[in-house]
Amino acid sequence: MLDYALLAALAAVVRTGSFERAAQQLHVTPSAVSQRVKLLEERLGTILVVRGAPCTGTAAGRRLCQHVERVALLERELQADLPGTPESAPPVTLRIAANADSLATWLIGAMAEAGDCLFDLVLDDQDHSADWLRRGDVLAAVTGSAKAVQGCDSVPLGALRYVATASPAFVARWFPAGLDEAALARAPRLTFNSKDRLQALWTRQAIGSDVTAPTHWLPSSQAFVDAALAGLGWGMNPEMLVADHLRSGRLVALAPDLPLDVPLHWQRSRMASSTLAAVTRAVVARARATLRQD
Amino acid sequence: MLDYALLAALAAVVRTGSFERAAQQLHVTPSAVSQRVKLLEERLGTILVVRGAPCTGTAAGRRLCQHVERVALLERELQADLPGTPESAPPVTLRIAANADSLATWLIGAMAEAGDCLFDLVLDDQDHSADWLRRGDVLAAVTGSAKAVQGCDSVPLGALRYVATASPAFVARWFPAGLDEAALARAPRLTFNSKDRLQALWTRQAIGSDVTAPTHWLPSSQAFVDAALAGLGWGMNPEMLVADHLRSGRLVALAPDLPLDVPLHWQRSRMASSTLAAVTRAVVARARATLRQD
Repeated sequence: MLDYALLAALAAVVRTGSFERAAQQLHVTPSAVSQRVKLLEERLGTILVVRGAPCTGTAAGRRLCQHVERVALLERELQADLPGTPESAPPVTLRIAANADSLATWLIGAMAEAGDCLFDLVLDDQDHSADWLRRGDVLAAVTGSAKAVQGCDSVPLGALRYVATASPAFVARWFPAGLDEAALARAPRLTFNSKDRLQALWTRQAIGSDVTAPTHWLPSSQAFVDAALAGLGWGMNPEMLVADHLRSGRLVALAPDLPLDVPLHWQRSRMASSTLAAVTRAVVARARATLRQD
Repeated sequence: MLDYALLAALAAVVRTGSFERAAQQLHVTPSAVSQRVKLLEERLGTILVVRGAPCTGTAAGRRLCQHVERVALLERELQADLPGTPESAPPVTLRIAANADSLATWLIGAMAEAGDCLFDLVLDDQDHSADWLRRGDVLAAVTGSAKAVQGCDSVPLGALRYVATASPAFVARWFPAGLDEAALARAPRLTFNSKDRLQALWTRQAIGSDVTAPTHWLPSSQAFVDAALAGLGWGMNPEMLVADHLRSGRLVALAPDLPLDVPLHWQRSRMASSTLAAVTRAVVARARATLRQD
């Protein structure tokens, strides 16, 4: 078997980002942590931690951390079955990937209903969050991809509805004659990051083809809403985040009849874990109560 | 001089994340874009783009993109001075780094007042955002560091006030006897990412030393507030984001007399640019109107 004292040191360094904080967490000295990680690196013949501020795991290091988390999950279930096992460990941490707009709308509610486990949320675009699962970096993901990743189950959650929104002043300035290709090519857009295709997808729906347009890059769901309110650009905002603003008229839909529905799926590792099963139940229940079901 | 047609192709690929979208932006074929980037890589003898989904720049590629942006900024000023120069280019994009909590509170207001330039926002912790400036990846940064990066000016902006907040039910469950070391070691915290030291800093202020505690990892300012409301954990939230919740009693301060003030600074490249000067004026004015001034 692997040496779990060494692995615990590695996991603490990667999670906290520093040898000092890992030492504090493990109640040992930083030099003990450093020796354990070095020993593990020597035994495995590969670098596991990129020393920096913060320290991060190499691909091999992250893979080992993920193994440690899975073992911790299994240990927790063992404790539930064998109440005699030594004192209760700290609550287990579930690493999951999700798109930022799910975190900004419905996911926190599911996390609050999932019981006492801790969450380590990794944000990525819904078209890329399944990659984290594929690489083994997370145990579950909210993703746009229905096709189950190998070793995972996939459950449809419903669709997150997006509305192309801007401030009334923005619409008056940039779309005085309505939505046409020339206006869409001039009006500043909001784009979350280079993975964000939603504005392009919607433009294609609206006028048949996407156009190149000036854009702000704003990697935050709430900043998207705030920037639309401030008149910086138009962007695809989750209906749930802008419903009040649309009702009050602080934001308007560029085309009220043309929402964009993005189907989401929950993919989870098939490893037997009652914690993961409880989180899955909470996520599916919350999603089905808040997302659009056909 | 460098070949700016090649550089423009590189910049478009890195910005849009794909050769196809870069081609669309430049009104050429994807294979033309690919040839230009390859030619540039051959001439410079180094890989500039990591081909992937999305495509990203290597360190050398990103450095060249930053050069292209600076030249675009200078060209725009030239156009202002020489109205006879050929048709107006698209608005210039300013890449700046900021902490997520600034973006969530006061920065959008400054961006809206800065005129017609476009923003490419990079988010990083206030203790790390100056690194982006140091590496030349951004032209300006909202940072916790007062000491001017080489080639940059530093202006104090005031302090962002944080309050340690949780839901009343969370406080009743985890802090029934008030804040002490044992309770702080058991109560789940919220942590933004491994760079986030605010909860540790505040704990040290509150009880004299930090303690190891279970934590959720949530890389979003709004998710921090939502998770506190949902009772998932306590965390340091910007007072501006939680003032309404504190007034209504949906959130409570763990220690109302113990806020944490984080001084912020604006650091900007000293390159002569009227766009950067206008953004600086807007940022400083907005910060001084919203952040705490001594």
